[in-house]
Amino acid sequence: MNGERLILVTNDDGYDSKGMAAAIEVARSFGRVVAVAPETTQSGMSQAITMHAPLFLRRVRTEEGLELYAFSGTPVDCVKMAFDHLFREERIDLVISGINHGSNSAVNVLYSGTMGAAIEGSFYGCPTVGLSLCDHGADADFEASIAWGKRIVGDLLAAEVALPLCLNVNIPVGRPETIRGLRLCRQNRGFWREEFFRREDPRGRTYFWLTGDFVNAEPDAEDTDEWALAHNYVSVVPIQVDMTDYGGLETLRNVLKN
Amino acid sequence: MNGERLILVTNDDGYDSKGMAAAIEVARSFGRVVAVAPETTQSGMSQAITMHAPLFLRRVRTEEGLELYAFSGTPVDCVKMAFDHLFREERIDLVISGINHGSNSAVNVLYSGTMGAAIEGSFYGCPTVGLSLCDHGADADFEASIAWGKRIVGDLLAAEVALPLCLNVNIPVGRPETIRGLRLCRQNRGFWREEFFRREDPRGRTYFWLTGDFVNAEPDAEDTDEWALAHNYVSVVPIQVDMTDYGGLETLRNVLKN
Repeated sequence: MNGERLILVTNDDGYDSKGMAAAIEVARSFGRVVAVAPETTQSGMSQAITMHAPLFLRRVRTEEGLELYAFSGTPVDCVKMAFDHLFREERIDLVISGINHGSNSAVNVLYSGTMGAAIEGSFYGCPTVGLSLCDHGADADFEASIAWGKRIVGDLLAAEVALPLCLNVNIPVGRPETIRGLRLCRQNRGFWREEFFRREDPRGRTYFWLTGDFVNAEPDAEDTDEWALAHNYVSVVPIQVDMTDYGGLETLRNVLKN
Repeated sequence: MNGERLILVTNDDGYDSKGMAAAIEVARSFGRVVAVAPETTQSGMSQAITMHAPLFLRRVRTEEGLELYAFSGTPVDCVKMAFDHLFREERIDLVISGINHGSNSAVNVLYSGTMGAAIEGSFYGCPTVGLSLCDHGADADFEASIAWGKRIVGDLLAAEVALPLCLNVNIPVGRPETIRGLRLCRQNRGFWREEFFRREDPRGRTYFWLTGDFVNAEPDAEDTDEWALAHNYVSVVPIQVDMTDYGGLETLRNVLKN
């Protein structure tokens, strides 16, 4: 019964990550799964593509209802490889990207490899769900994320209306029973302020590690994803890709002349 | 007279690229310049950040009114390094990212390292201009881009209104006299369809090169950047970073329940 749907799974933590296995578990409830993910971790890779290097594809394994590939490119490269090469002649019904180790709420949608891949999937006219768990730990508990992932994907596949093509779903840390529900949200405004940790290598060369803190510019706004997550709700933000600042366009008419 | 303004220049083709020199030439008309750009080409790096590797900073040279640094990270890392480390105690008045070899119109804003850096600059509350020339060639002629860059930056700095913080400026190929003027535009809708070129290495391993074509989904829409460029106008799209699909949010209220 599920065999008719083809679901693409990708991930930015690598083809053998715990979050990838969790996303495959979500996807297998709904159809045949093809999973294409980077050979190595690609966190923070945004919507990067590989323009100046050759890319190697490796079939890791095939089993009933699942084909798993590792690809040497970025998460977006993986999505392109699936749609434009591996499954060019078949229809992919849904893309699941994740489950990411760590939040992709707020402006992190722009830095995230998980969401970069999800957005890319939507360019193929295919519903895509980016799933992220707000826990960077190697021992992160994905049980609640899997349950909510299944519930959201199930509701989307059952819907009889035209849906937004890309969803940014974040799941708070905790056991399933501690999560208060789901909230539809807008993207919180905020930004990162970085601290560069400075070190010296054994040869006396200075190097830096990028590290920083997210500044929530509107902590009291109850309609944002940050608020939902801080209050133990699953946040769902539908994503579109027109970045035009329409208000700014009007302002500029008096500033930049033809 | 110009010494009071501090202008950050960055680029995704590397600190010693021709486009970087062109952007520095634009910036030097308006103030003291600090240039921080990647050691090597980082085209297509989007808004990627380096989370899992140390970063090395190298001062390339200092001359009257210019400090030039090469950084081992991504274009966005370069912007963060400038604001959060090198010039943490100083005010940067403007960021120029570019001049890119190749168009960053339409959805390319999402893949572009040039625009990734420009968007990052805007997070620091600083006006930023991404400049791209629609010519990938190594012998690209930057003369018109430099002239238009100076004109646009001059108009922005002279403006007495609150401006959009980030502009995506693309300049068509050609001599200055062939350009018909400037158009304020919205981002064209469209997407890439890829062809993976397949080759074999000397050891028989298959590899792929990513290559593709942009599909303009609305070729007749005269208010888009693609139309402007196709008709020999400089295109200017103000960019904002709230990717929430507000219409989709309403649709979802009937699909995803709490």
